[in-house]
Amino acid sequence: MSAADPRLSINQATIKYANLEEALKVTAGAGIQAIGLWREPVNEVGLDVAARMLSDSGLRFSTHCRGGFFTLPEGAERIAALDDNRRAIEETATLAAAGAEGSTAVLVLVAGGLPEGDRDLVGARERVRDAIGALAEDAKAAGVTLAIEPLHPMYASDRAVVSTLGEALDIAADFDAHVVGAAVDTFHIWWDPQVLEQIARAGREGRIATYQVCDWKTPLPVDVLLGRHYMGDGVIDFASLTEAVVATGYDRDIEVEIFNADIWADSAQNVVRRTAEAFTATVSPHLR
Amino acid sequence: MSAADPRLSINQATIKYANLEEALKVTAGAGIQAIGLWREPVNEVGLDVAARMLSDSGLRFSTHCRGGFFTLPEGAERIAALDDNRRAIEETATLAAAGAEGSTAVLVLVAGGLPEGDRDLVGARERVRDAIGALAEDAKAAGVTLAIEPLHPMYASDRAVVSTLGEALDIAADFDAHVVGAAVDTFHIWWDPQVLEQIARAGREGRIATYQVCDWKTPLPVDVLLGRHYMGDGVIDFASLTEAVVATGYDRDIEVEIFNADIWADSAQNVVRRTAEAFTATVSPHLR
Repeated sequence: MSAADPRLSINQATIKYANLEEALKVTAGAGIQAIGLWREPVNEVGLDVAARMLSDSGLRFSTHCRGGFFTLPEGAERIAALDDNRRAIEETATLAAAGAEGSTAVLVLVAGGLPEGDRDLVGARERVRDAIGALAEDAKAAGVTLAIEPLHPMYASDRAVVSTLGEALDIAADFDAHVVGAAVDTFHIWWDPQVLEQIARAGREGRIATYQVCDWKTPLPVDVLLGRHYMGDGVIDFASLTEAVVATGYDRDIEVEIFNADIWADSAQNVVRRTAEAFTATVSPHLR
Repeated sequence: MSAADPRLSINQATIKYANLEEALKVTAGAGIQAIGLWREPVNEVGLDVAARMLSDSGLRFSTHCRGGFFTLPEGAERIAALDDNRRAIEETATLAAAGAEGSTAVLVLVAGGLPEGDRDLVGARERVRDAIGALAEDAKAAGVTLAIEPLHPMYASDRAVVSTLGEALDIAADFDAHVVGAAVDTFHIWWDPQVLEQIARAGREGRIATYQVCDWKTPLPVDVLLGRHYMGDGVIDFASLTEAVVATGYDRDIEVEIFNADIWADSAQNVVRRTAEAFTATVSPHLR
């Protein structure tokens, strides 16, 4: 096996059943230089311990997953969600400071779906913008970039009312580009007829907070959240998307984030090795 | 039960297991004035017989479903697909002439997915445009409007590379508005942040060939093609979408097209009755 691409970052969700210690060890052990973490395994060991473990690993930190779930109407639950996002901002800042040089303090935000019984998609989207407004000062103070992640439209009702990169950029436009950007994830946006022009726009506006890759394939699994695949196993054209991202000047780590029950059932070592090979085959040729 | 809305048309797929005779009888028997037909049950009895049966039913004909599947590269299969679409155009003209006054000669087109092993979405979309160009003269000569149907992006790889109303209108823009329009189907486009402006644009450009309604609900079924529901059972806001369509001056029939294994397992009479009730509750209040 050739050396892993220096731009590759393993998003921890790809090796879902590894705890933080194992995730760091397997990633570094495979010669990979960066990792994206999830809140649950970080909080399992506590933030301070997690930061020390990350620092000891020598890995860069690329993103923290995730904040968001902003579509609740005014009330105690919404206030609790915002407070939880403030903790996520602090975690992100701490972990980015603990990671190796080149770490990025990026918190990925999933908007949330329609509240139960609610059909007002426009209103839910406005609440996302309002929530980001409520968090922007905290993010700025902490030096953290909030990355609005458009999710595939099949999740619009129950996971994320932000469905396109263009829509994420429209929301981000109200805020400083260092504070609010967008996550460009191939799985969610590959189908969009405007995808290349919106990637170029995201670059012009300084909003590409993270670039994430994995593949799309049908038939979808019973749980459509888990239909993500190794790059090359599906239909996404990583050449055109990666070249569009690179053309904007994006020079950060590139995460692989795969939710897939079969891949999760494999050993973390195998998954990291296969991820690195798939990255080298499909993404690396388009980085310059 | 109150009288069915005079604008309601039952798309035959909603009562999938009814043959043409039963579909016509049940629809007319419920006091509904219009029906959209599918090619298979029409061809089961033969076009001439189908036209006579439709005429005898007294129903208006609203659309013929469906043509398309245009994404194949040059070759015998593509030529066969185009020839099959020419037959569908003729069927549409014949059926529209046989239906009651106010019938519309509209052929719904589903673009087709990516050919096996192909990742060139842009190229596949160009072939859709080319195929429509190859059929436009035939459609014009027959007095038929080709309705490009954007399908939900979850079908982009295997069913339809045309995923948004805006994209359908961009393709249609190369052709006369009487010859090429778009199908506005709530299930496929409700999530689109641009949906209201694209419906308005479709109206301005004279391109709304048919308006179709059904609801979206999660979790999606194992076969994601079958996740369509009675209006009111899911999350779609029929008020804003219907008002946007009405505001364009659209005054044709409005079809209900539901693919759902549980609904198909019910009797055609029950399904038509429930469809009419759901339409009266969710769509009728927004027609003026």
